Amino acid sequence: MKSLLEEEKARLRAYLMEKKILVENRLREYFRPMDGPAAVISKAMTYSLFAGGKRLRPILCMAAASVVGGREEDVLPVACALECIHTYSLIHDDLPAMDDDDLRRGEPTNHKVFGEAIAVLAGDGLLTEAFRLMADVPHTAQKSSSALLEVTRLVAQAAGSHGMVGGQVADILSEGKRVEFPVVEFIHSHKTGALIRASVTAGALLGGGTRQQVEALGTYGENIGLAFQISDDILDIEGDRETMGKGTGSDNKKGKATYPALVGLKKSKEIQEDLVDNAVRVLGRFGDRAEPLELIARYIIERKK
Amino acid sequence: MKSLLEEEKARLRAYLMEKKILVENRLREYFRPMDGPAAVISKAMTYSLFAGGKRLRPILCMAAASVVGGREEDVLPVACALECIHTYSLIHDDLPAMDDDDLRRGEPTNHKVFGEAIAVLAGDGLLTEAFRLMADVPHTAQKSSSALLEVTRLVAQAAGSHGMVGGQVADILSEGKRVEFPVVEFIHSHKTGALIRASVTAGALLGGGTRQQVEALGTYGENIGLAFQISDDILDIEGDRETMGKGTGSDNKKGKATYPALVGLKKSKEIQEDLVDNAVRVLGRFGDRAEPLELIARYIIERKK
Repeated sequence: MKSLLEEEKARLRAYLMEKKILVENRLREYFRPMDGPAAVISKAMTYSLFAGGKRLRPILCMAAASVVGGREEDVLPVACALECIHTYSLIHDDLPAMDDDDLRRGEPTNHKVFGEAIAVLAGDGLLTEAFRLMADVPHTAQKSSSALLEVTRLVAQAAGSHGMVGGQVADILSEGKRVEFPVVEFIHSHKTGALIRASVTAGALLGGGTRQQVEALGTYGENIGLAFQISDDILDIEGDRETMGKGTGSDNKKGKATYPALVGLKKSKEIQEDLVDNAVRVLGRFGDRAEPLELIARYIIERKK
Repeated sequence: MKSLLEEEKARLRAYLMEKKILVENRLREYFRPMDGPAAVISKAMTYSLFAGGKRLRPILCMAAASVVGGREEDVLPVACALECIHTYSLIHDDLPAMDDDDLRRGEPTNHKVFGEAIAVLAGDGLLTEAFRLMADVPHTAQKSSSALLEVTRLVAQAAGSHGMVGGQVADILSEGKRVEFPVVEFIHSHKTGALIRASVTAGALLGGGTRQQVEALGTYGENIGLAFQISDDILDIEGDRETMGKGTGSDNKKGKATYPALVGLKKSKEIQEDLVDNAVRVLGRFGDRAEPLELIARYIIERKK
């Protein structure tokens, strides 16, 4: 896999920035400050929602919709829903009973600011709101209405006990234990991979892609999802504390199951390269329109945070 | 409001038992034991899901569908989803950071058995699964597909930060404080009322009710939702520990905002009677078919657990 050229990097940066702003503007419309006796919950939800995420999942969702000829605007509510689900998972993962993290992206974690009870509820609120947004896409045609239900099903499947939640369970249970490679693979593919794959597939489905297109993009999503989690593992070892906005070496300290811990850094990078190669290969059929998806895949290997 | 006659009680008991079995059989089909590294999550989810709940929300949903001429079978997935949402809220409410309860329906709470991390995740899993079930209703016609999306929206609205989650936030924040009546009303109508109302409305919508029918049943749901929560408050004072399966007097110990604490027991019972009267009144237009809904409303005042 060849490295990104400077001009490619610049195009990708501009693309990511443009889409990130689109997502954040829409999220701000959805999450207006509340008043009344429960007002603090909207503060807690938006504290984490606007803590500087990369918006990778919503961007992948929009990019996949574009690639099959759909309109970004039509998938924006689902894209925002995916970011809500991702954010809820971070809030709950950081809880004292889970990973017990004090910092996230350089800022105090949700429970450090709002207390544990409100942090649990902020996560619950974001997860619930995600499904409200998903059901709220403008849908006039029969087709889009049933596509929306299919997307809801597949996102819930990817986020629930058979997906992300299941991955987090296995992660928690394996902390500090010697685990075999299949378990690490299970954790990574479920905890991160499932929702990333679903983000791409959701975009492809709502964008009106054919079954073959949706499947091809699913393969793309599956490969970059796993590659992305491996790069997280690698960054935890090689990353720069300041760039990352969190402590490095924390996986090791916590006895977390990671690829580098099991197969070494070199082999992890080889696996990652293969995954990105696989992802880029399936994009071939989409021609030039797939450039953003290709650049995102190749960027995963080079990212610094 | 006249008390239930013995024959009415017998009919209600038979009705509730029949529907409860229907819901529980379907829930068992949905929640099969999992295997693999995350298997414990299915144990934790089903531990609370089959801990002997009354299944009030799913039963209301099915009864509302029947009243407008719909088929119970068609709303069963949504009815089950409502029970998943209710169960997740109980698991999270019981957490040490929230109400810190050791017992629920006479059995150790989820986190007492599975630990806090798994209990948080079991709640997350049930909430997510609820939306998967909701999107999984067989829908062939355009109408049912968009009704399903509307139901998803209204259930998410009722369960989220503008509904149940918001109610729990206000409840947590007011513990041990002197709160005014409007705040107690807010807590009750959001924490319990919203999802009960949504259960009735969801059934009416999916059952094919007209706008007027759905609205009338919404009024029914709103009134019994609040009446139900007030009877919870009253049972916490007057209830029998053994029948309830949990300690009584705990609201008072925790300094919880309740109707009896604010307006006294007598006035609370009067308000409750008025609410049940209001609920029964709107059922008039539906004739004999509304008997189950009427008996449920009148039962709320007499229930012992």
